[in-house]
Amino acid sequence: MDTNELMHTLGRQARSASRAMAKADTAAKNQALLLIAAAIRREAAALKAANAQDLDAARANGLDAALLDRLTLSDKAIETMALGLEQIAQLPDPIGEMSNLKYRPSGIQVGQMRVPLGVIGIIYEARPNVTVDAAGLCIKSGNATILRGGSEAIACNRALAALVKEGLQGAGLPADAVQVVETTDRAAVGALISMPEYVDVIVPRGGKGLIERLMRESKIPMIKHLDGICHVYVDDKADLDKALRICNNAKTHRYGTCNTMETLLVAEGIATHALPKLAEIYNAKQVELRGCEKTRAILPGIKAATEEDWRTEYLAPILSIKVVADVDAAIAHINTYGSAHTDSIVTEDYSRALQFMREVDSASVMVNASTRFADGFEYGLGAEIGISNDKLHARGPVGLEGLTSLKYVVFGHGEVRQ
Amino acid sequence: MDTNELMHTLGRQARSASRAMAKADTAAKNQALLLIAAAIRREAAALKAANAQDLDAARANGLDAALLDRLTLSDKAIETMALGLEQIAQLPDPIGEMSNLKYRPSGIQVGQMRVPLGVIGIIYEARPNVTVDAAGLCIKSGNATILRGGSEAIACNRALAALVKEGLQGAGLPADAVQVVETTDRAAVGALISMPEYVDVIVPRGGKGLIERLMRESKIPMIKHLDGICHVYVDDKADLDKALRICNNAKTHRYGTCNTMETLLVAEGIATHALPKLAEIYNAKQVELRGCEKTRAILPGIKAATEEDWRTEYLAPILSIKVVADVDAAIAHINTYGSAHTDSIVTEDYSRALQFMREVDSASVMVNASTRFADGFEYGLGAEIGISNDKLHARGPVGLEGLTSLKYVVFGHGEVRQ
Repeated sequence: MDTNELMHTLGRQARSASRAMAKADTAAKNQALLLIAAAIRREAAALKAANAQDLDAARANGLDAALLDRLTLSDKAIETMALGLEQIAQLPDPIGEMSNLKYRPSGIQVGQMRVPLGVIGIIYEARPNVTVDAAGLCIKSGNATILRGGSEAIACNRALAALVKEGLQGAGLPADAVQVVETTDRAAVGALISMPEYVDVIVPRGGKGLIERLMRESKIPMIKHLDGICHVYVDDKADLDKALRICNNAKTHRYGTCNTMETLLVAEGIATHALPKLAEIYNAKQVELRGCEKTRAILPGIKAATEEDWRTEYLAPILSIKVVADVDAAIAHINTYGSAHTDSIVTEDYSRALQFMREVDSASVMVNASTRFADGFEYGLGAEIGISNDKLHARGPVGLEGLTSLKYVVFGHGEVRQ
Repeated sequence: MDTNELMHTLGRQARSASRAMAKADTAAKNQALLLIAAAIRREAAALKAANAQDLDAARANGLDAALLDRLTLSDKAIETMALGLEQIAQLPDPIGEMSNLKYRPSGIQVGQMRVPLGVIGIIYEARPNVTVDAAGLCIKSGNATILRGGSEAIACNRALAALVKEGLQGAGLPADAVQVVETTDRAAVGALISMPEYVDVIVPRGGKGLIERLMRESKIPMIKHLDGICHVYVDDKADLDKALRICNNAKTHRYGTCNTMETLLVAEGIATHALPKLAEIYNAKQVELRGCEKTRAILPGIKAATEEDWRTEYLAPILSIKVVADVDAAIAHINTYGSAHTDSIVTEDYSRALQFMREVDSASVMVNASTRFADGFEYGLGAEIGISNDKLHARGPVGLEGLTSLKYVVFGHGEVRQ
């Protein structure tokens, strides 16, 4: 079977399984999740053996240390996968939930019911834990899924797929509800994003290059974010202690995450006072600073920021800094150069806080909090399949609800339209 | 300026106006709507003169009677447009609404705020009232819009555009918040659906051919529905009076609407009893019936339905009828042949009603009600920009909320991530 044919077979099977998953009851879905968790713990040794195969191949292919690190399945990672499934089992089932049921003058009662999207295609890099997390979220939300992980993790993904199928079948659910693409042929991705008859939404997780290519080529809507150019704006009415704490955390808590601050905006009225203290924090942690002209007048030692810097997600210990006139200028900068991901204002001024909240056009807008909070677990979603900075459908951290949709339900008593 | 250049200019202006619209307060948006309504009433004679120009040109071009009818702007239509705007002014402002604000263990308070989508491109046929309805909905929902109406209505649309701009400016809002494409060059549509940098969503309203072409070519997400192959399933536990009333209304209330029943499914156990009574109703109204073999055994005079009939939206006094074994078979037929628009079951059986509600994968699912209720006004949305049978974002009738999105808001007190 060639790759295109294989993918169409997976698609047909997924569509069929999605019908069964949509009507599966909560108990069966939870049982499947718990059975998979148990199987993962039971087969820990076999999983590590499969992972060792992947690692050997990766080393032979000269993969770099960071990639090898992400690919490695430690005992702790195995336990975390199992625990993650058990946590998903404990979340409320979003499917079938009805809301806003109201009687209309015609006599009908109208409301909405939460339903699965259908078939989710997930494209991700060589991280075996994503296979299990994504499978768990799709099972709980009543969707079928086709998982296309990085080819470097193929042996491990195959082993995990077998355990997922075992759990599904043990709970009386269709084994095809979760299918791992078992070919490393790159054409599989192209096929997956070109069958809207079988796949309702694509969730790509990976670098900007992958996402950009998928955006150009996909014939299926995607839940995705391209990059996180996040800002903190320190207003001249900021509490300086809060500002220092938040600016420190937003940049240095982790450098490689999408909700890390990449550009710091400082109000002119507080810049002379705040910037030296901020620079001290960043210098101590060896964060490279790049500033606008006004910033460099206060911090003369630092590099000049170029126009390009304002549009760059460094994912590294580098920070661009701009002195702005006021909250209006900060909002204008963010809406022009940002990536509509996560932006925060530090201020004690009531009106400016509300203005920033309303006018910044990003998936997460914060007052007096670190951008690092933009996360499904921190927001209380219980799980996260990714973060979206699109405006349609899900926006911001995407949990179970983002994998669902609302249909209208009408309870009538024989009513007809006049 | 060539058409492509013109459209990019409109796009840039719309994007800029959308920033002002997003922060416009409720009073200004309502004032604009009321000023436009007043201007439409004041300029009724001028609008009719412009419409007369369009009608002359349309007659000269040999347009058919149905199109001429839709194009005609009567006194009543003018008053309806003005009233529509006044109704939209009375609806609650969805923008800025915050919901689900909850404290998290970290100390932050997380919730969601409803915000505009940004710039809406609307592509529609030669119906001048759509220009005003769409402008009104976009203004109220804080969006900017680019309206591309059918070229046959160009004189009237230009006249309406001037009144809309007058109202926007009178309320201190940017005139570019509503822009009517003032060229009849067909390339304008191609340009409009190819500038994702300026347009956030396309709402196409028109025939299946137009929508299919836009689906293939658009680089921007769309809120749309392709067709309405709606079903009523008469269960063997149906109340026959309700069944007759609903089946009559769903088919014959209006033949050309997307929520009209196109296929009737009847349970085997009630077919012999119900079908002759149903046929009597349809025969009296000269509805052509096409049946499956079992239907024709009961109604021997009627035409045989082909496989193609189950997939056809007639938009005409034609109805296909199929006898099915039970509710499972009905659901399977609907999920296979339907268009995920609107489907209804007639039954007094509690479990089957709930099963149908849950398992039919359509934008509107009903029990004991006519499919004709699938409508923004009937659902209490107060207005309707269209009906969507996609699963992402808006599903079913789309009102003001469908033109908005939810962003996360975080109220902090200096919290940082641990």
